[in-house]
Parts: sequence; C-alpha cells; structure tokens
Amino acid sequence: MDQIVRDLERAVRNVPDFPTPGIQFKDITPILADPNLLNRAVEALAHPFEQAGITKVVGIEARGFILGAMLAHHLGAGFVPVRKKGKLPYETVSSEYELEYGVDVIEMHVDAIAPNDRVLIHDDVIATGGTAAAGYDLARHAGGEVVGFAFLIELTFLEGRAKLDDSLMIHTVMQV
Amino acid sequence: MDQIVRDLERAVRNVPDFPTPGIQFKDITPILADPNLLNRAVEALAHPFEQAGITKVVGIEARGFILGAMLAHHLGAGFVPVRKKGKLPYETVSSEYELEYGVDVIEMHVDAIAPNDRVLIHDDVIATGGTAAAGYDLARHAGGEVVGFAFLIELTFLEGRAKLDDSLMIHTVMQV
Repeated sequence: MDQIVRDLERAVRNVPDFPTPGIQFKDITPILADPNLLNRAVEALAHPFEQAGITKVVGIEARGFILGAMLAHHLGAGFVPVRKKGKLPYETVSSEYELEYGVDVIEMHVDAIAPNDRVLIHDDVIATGGTAAAGYDLARHAGGEVVGFAFLIELTFLEGRAKLDDSLMIHTVMQV
Repeated sequence: MDQIVRDLERAVRNVPDFPTPGIQFKDITPILADPNLLNRAVEALAHPFEQAGITKVVGIEARGFILGAMLAHHLGAGFVPVRKKGKLPYETVSSEYELEYGVDVIEMHVDAIAPNDRVLIHDDVIATGGTAAAGYDLARHAGGEVVGFAFLIELTFLEGRAKLDDSLMIHTVMQV
C-alpha cells in the first residue's frame, strides 16, 4: 500500500493560484486519466472498508462523483449523489455548512438512504471539512448508519478532521 | 440485454415540472442507488464498445461523471472530466454550445487526451445534443480519435442525435 500511495502522490499535479491567488490546488486529473492509477486509487480508498458491509457510498458534487461511483462499484454498494441546492429533481433533505463568508447548502434525495443502510461518505479532498460534515448530517438525518469517511487527499493544515465525528473511521489516502 | 433495459426503464423516476414547469425530468438516482442496476447500467452502456480499444472515457459534468467513471473502469480506460467554465485548475481547451437563449462553454484540460487515444464520450442523458457535440469537439481538438458516444437515456423528440457525427457509434440504452 505504501508504494501505491507514493505513485499516487507523484501523479498529483500542483496548480498554483487556483481557484484564487495564494492557493495551491491539488489536481487529481492525472490520476483519473491513467487506468492503472485510477484502479489503485479506488483500492486505496476502499481498503479499510472492504469488510465493513457498506451498502451506500455518498459522493459529494462534483469531483466526489468520480471516485465515489467507482468506490460504490468496488464495494458492491449503491451510489448516492449529494448536490448543491436546486440540482436534484425529487424531494430533498438539506444541510447548511459554513464558508469563509456566509453559508452554503447541499441536498440529498429523501429516499436515497434507508435506516438499515451502512454509509461511507466520499469526497476527493477534505479541506475545512464543512461539506463532509454536512454530508454526514444528511445521511444521519435519513436514518443511515455512517461507518466512515474516505478522502483521497487530506489538507491537514486546514484541520477538517476536527469537524467530523472522531468515533468513525476517517480514512485519507494522501496527506499534505 | 432486453431484460436489462426493461429493468432500467422501470427504475427511472419521472419527476414532473423539473427543472422548469412543463418539463418531465428523467431521474436516474434510483438506478444509482441499487448496486445490481448500477452494474447492469454500466454493462449496457459499455456493450458495443467492449472490443473497441477505448483508452479514454470523457464524462460531462456533473451527472456524466458518475457512470462515466464506472464506464472507464469497466473498459480499462482512463477518465477525463469535461467541466463548466472555470472549474478545471490547469490549462484548458474550451468549446461553446448553444442554449435556448445564449451560449455556454465547457472545458477540458489541454493534456487530457493524446493523439493516439481512442475516445468514448458519455453523458447520462442526450437531450438537444449540444453538450455532447461540444465534448466531441474538445476530444477532436486534442487529437484523439472519437470512437463513439454512450448515453443512458435518449430524449428522442429533441433530436440530439442529429447534432452528432453519424459516422460514429451513437449508443443509447433507453429511448423516450
């Protein structure tokens, strides 16, 4: 697994000043473009959850849809998209989270998760943790049992982990 | 394959008046939520392309990321996200397409597709075909050989197929 992580780390592209000046963005598209790295990224994300009986993977719009769907397939689970406000067509539940200035809202279909579901929450990157915590709220509100979180990259200096329930497995493949 | 298509058709949820009054939206989230249907949807999408030597699957933001990533994995290909303007961090190529009023722009990383790539373009739904045609332009501009298109649902009354190169395989799993 260590070698896989090193190969993945080498493939991440650092893009300076995106989305705003002073921010160095971690671009995972070189991983996505390579079938071998893509498989290994999914395996590395899934690793602690292989025997966890996950029935639903929640992926957060938009980049969380990509590896989230593959993770669902890998674990034999269904996939649940969590989207920005107004994007889901059917009846939704919603959760607010704080931005640097103001709040944002994410939504999930009301029937996306059932009370007996065992849920894994995925996004490609955990930054401040606000979106992941809001995703957790949605899954809990629907009655699902959240087993853990799986992120490809953790931006440790933003301390997003502190926003999440630390009794759960918070798995991050790469830490920067 | 006929039985698979019937099972998928039964799972699609019709949502009236979304996103605007008078439009009946085809909601595929019940397919995504069911691991068995999800697998079958990917198999049905991939079916004509199993032996086509596809090296890159292009998925169009945001719903095209979900089955697109799984399709890439199924075909042993890499995944290329095509996104709305300003969302991709690295240098991009862009393509305009017409909306009912005005134009919209989608983008792809300049290095996402190489001249020897064999490309499959995916979105969940083909409506007017504008986005898919723009995705085709991006892949061609990068020098890739576009082998075909795979859509889960074709809204035949919008005649989107007419906007696409009809010398290519245009594969749609369900037609409404």
